[in-house]
Amino acid sequence: MTTMNDIGIALDRSTDTPLFRQLEHELASAIAAGELGAGTRLPSERDLAEMLGVSRTTAMNAYRELESRGLVRGRVGRGTYVNAVGSTEHDAPFAWQGKIAFGAQRTLDPTLRGLVREQAEDTISFAGGSPAIDLFPIEAFRALVNRVMAQDWETAIGLGPSEGQPALRAAIARRINARPEQILVLTGSQQGLDFVSRCLLDPGDAVIMDRPGYLGAIQTFRAAGVHIVGWDAVRADPEELEDLIQRYRPKLLYTNPTFHNPTGRTLSLETRKEILALAARYRLPILEDEPYRELSFRTTPPPTLFDLDEHSLVIHLTTFSKTLAAGLRLGWLAAPEAVIDQLTLVKQRSDLFGAGAFQLVVAELLERGLYDAHLRTLRAAHAKRYAAMTAALESLLPRGMLTWSPVTGGIYLWAHARPSIDAQRLAQRALDAGLALVSGDVFCPDGAGWHDLRLCFARNPAPVIATGVERLANLLTTAEAHPLREGSTHPLM
Amino acid sequence: MTTMNDIGIALDRSTDTPLFRQLEHELASAIAAGELGAGTRLPSERDLAEMLGVSRTTAMNAYRELESRGLVRGRVGRGTYVNAVGSTEHDAPFAWQGKIAFGAQRTLDPTLRGLVREQAEDTISFAGGSPAIDLFPIEAFRALVNRVMAQDWETAIGLGPSEGQPALRAAIARRINARPEQILVLTGSQQGLDFVSRCLLDPGDAVIMDRPGYLGAIQTFRAAGVHIVGWDAVRADPEELEDLIQRYRPKLLYTNPTFHNPTGRTLSLETRKEILALAARYRLPILEDEPYRELSFRTTPPPTLFDLDEHSLVIHLTTFSKTLAAGLRLGWLAAPEAVIDQLTLVKQRSDLFGAGAFQLVVAELLERGLYDAHLRTLRAAHAKRYAAMTAALESLLPRGMLTWSPVTGGIYLWAHARPSIDAQRLAQRALDAGLALVSGDVFCPDGAGWHDLRLCFARNPAPVIATGVERLANLLTTAEAHPLREGSTHPLM
Repeated sequence: MTTMNDIGIALDRSTDTPLFRQLEHELASAIAAGELGAGTRLPSERDLAEMLGVSRTTAMNAYRELESRGLVRGRVGRGTYVNAVGSTEHDAPFAWQGKIAFGAQRTLDPTLRGLVREQAEDTISFAGGSPAIDLFPIEAFRALVNRVMAQDWETAIGLGPSEGQPALRAAIARRINARPEQILVLTGSQQGLDFVSRCLLDPGDAVIMDRPGYLGAIQTFRAAGVHIVGWDAVRADPEELEDLIQRYRPKLLYTNPTFHNPTGRTLSLETRKEILALAARYRLPILEDEPYRELSFRTTPPPTLFDLDEHSLVIHLTTFSKTLAAGLRLGWLAAPEAVIDQLTLVKQRSDLFGAGAFQLVVAELLERGLYDAHLRTLRAAHAKRYAAMTAALESLLPRGMLTWSPVTGGIYLWAHARPSIDAQRLAQRALDAGLALVSGDVFCPDGAGWHDLRLCFARNPAPVIATGVERLANLLTTAEAHPLREGSTHPLM
Repeated sequence: MTTMNDIGIALDRSTDTPLFRQLEHELASAIAAGELGAGTRLPSERDLAEMLGVSRTTAMNAYRELESRGLVRGRVGRGTYVNAVGSTEHDAPFAWQGKIAFGAQRTLDPTLRGLVREQAEDTISFAGGSPAIDLFPIEAFRALVNRVMAQDWETAIGLGPSEGQPALRAAIARRINARPEQILVLTGSQQGLDFVSRCLLDPGDAVIMDRPGYLGAIQTFRAAGVHIVGWDAVRADPEELEDLIQRYRPKLLYTNPTFHNPTGRTLSLETRKEILALAARYRLPILEDEPYRELSFRTTPPPTLFDLDEHSLVIHLTTFSKTLAAGLRLGWLAAPEAVIDQLTLVKQRSDLFGAGAFQLVVAELLERGLYDAHLRTLRAAHAKRYAAMTAALESLLPRGMLTWSPVTGGIYLWAHARPSIDAQRLAQRALDAGLALVSGDVFCPDGAGWHDLRLCFARNPAPVIATGVERLANLLTTAEAHPLREGSTHPLM
């Protein structure tokens, strides 16, 4: 890499142009010409002044001007560095890219945003995590929206409390046998992840989470600047967990106990108790994320960590996105009241409060038993769609081309291809073939999952699933016949 | 304050209990007994080990255990401190308060949350910032909700793009003569403040903002750990601004150019141009917050900074909370596309995307001219309510008891009481008299506004305003007759 020593800096002491302006200009030209590339460390003010025979004030002023133009970036104790200059910045007198905060630079991964982007019309999606949205009780919902907007429109569209609408908090609290004061209404579990992260984590802290695990959690923790430690989600071995706690002294344990994303596994009652015992022994807060809990095909899953917890160690997080619809933007968490107070302050400065209308509607759905009726519909439908997907995979794919462990609920099948299959490339090719897939690597904070696929079986009716699996079979057969070259690179997430 | 030297630590080397456990127990007891108060700095591990004749590992292990119990807090280079132990923690095996991140401890001020809390039934509120919500076109709105839920329910309640619904982005872009790609839909301006702060600001940075200024902005910036520098919002002197820029080298200028909160003043065209020239000269990004811009009584305000900007320096932020209803949770910002990209990544990890239904409805309101029709209704009503409030103040209060500058739009009157009036206490007493007020100090980041009141004149019909002003007149007359003692303390915000 070119260093400052290779750049010829010409200063003219005979003109009226101040020396710092000349120096600024010379450095800016070298940056624009690419002679000083992004990330180059510049000399200290003192060294630069000595190198050029100018005063330290001149060097300081030049650096300050370059910094205000977004071309360099200085930080106490670390030196001054050349910024990446975006090519989209032609319309600005300075590079916006250079104005981005250090903290924000940690979060540049658009994967999650890509997942919620719309697909082409005829694409079949096994990618996004969606329940059987075609079975959403739209008529009943519409009728309740009408009723709420007629009878209680001031609450529906007026100011509301940051903690959430009292009616919804009460309905949720009754459902989980908690107090309404223990409930914080959210715009979805992503907001809960963000709030808990902002409330409990500082940069440099360690967090233990399921590996593989929820992409949104990986991104949130990465953006918080914490060290993510993966705990094998499928083995779910408490001894491994204890080793990790001892080694990394984490500030938080994040886990999906039930119908885990992406693997679908459910922790046994015994494992849940062991995790809680470890958390109590090591005084480790747990964030339990349970979006799929109510989507068991038949049997009732073991109690939540929140229910089993005798020491107020657990924050229980969930969403209506997987049981009603993601676009309601409604989730909630339950926690000790001291934590609710803290998180409500974060809510307040994040978005003040949540929209009232759908909160009132969902409270009615819960109270009138319509929510439970819909859950029964979903469970039966999802069980059928799961059967349809596994039957199609078994009949359309050669034995052993994809393997998976059976699930008893949730919405995901975690499938493993042979090592010759690069799942990320497969997912890219699949889009051209009218199939949306997610490759397993996006769920692994530490580089893995390259031969795995997460298939959402719940979203589509059985005939669509069969067509989708046909497309998948063709893709896999082609990919196995023409394996990718060795050594293809994978971006570390 | 008690220090470690005053605490007798008794270690028993003859028992089976490890020394670090004994040390942990002794220190925890001293903390529980209040002998080591919150904030006490503990000795370094090395010093503690020397003091007690134990190994450094013993001292380190004891501190780690105390830290995991939330009783102490250590930070590299700063030492180990005793935490505040909350009294609400009786149900937890560890103090949740002690688990709160350093970053989150900056935001413990519940003022803003208090403002949006509900008032008692018969209270008249001049406090919250609300338009004439009684004139909200609820029938037209309900009809559109119905229509959207019938015709486009998958978009209304399904997954959506993080940037916002295309229909709404397009409608907004047409309105301000921008490209849809320059628009990011938000759940309100508070979310915009949060995102811009997360995107552009690191702890220790300086921000210049209006003084007095929007409470939510003060809280957001304070939570970001930045140094808030106040610029006199009423004088709005560009020379003062330049001085502040030179002295503090801020990363951002935050301002309400039009019908400013709380003072109601509007920047002249000339001042706007001067601010832009300064921003270009010093390469300073501007966050322009314009929630009240469309609420001029009669005349059209000068163009926005965003409109006047020739260098892509300005992020324009606004909300539908002050023109439609706060509970829609809809706002938006316009900015150079590079900034939109960055902010969308922050949106993605904050709450993934916004609810679709009301976005579609508001897009229809904009496109069908219903929004503009409603703005005309509001403008006329607000002008009448402003006249009603000033008339009542003039007729019911002795001359000079409250003074204010006239406004030509917006929703606030900024009133100054005599120095003998403590506005914060007045606001507390007012609640008992059935009147909600906000005292001026909450809008001042640096301690001021103690004799000022922000009165929202837009929310209530004229007869209610008259009753409210009667209550205010009684309160002020009583307070002036019994002035508070000198030297009453004010919490520094």
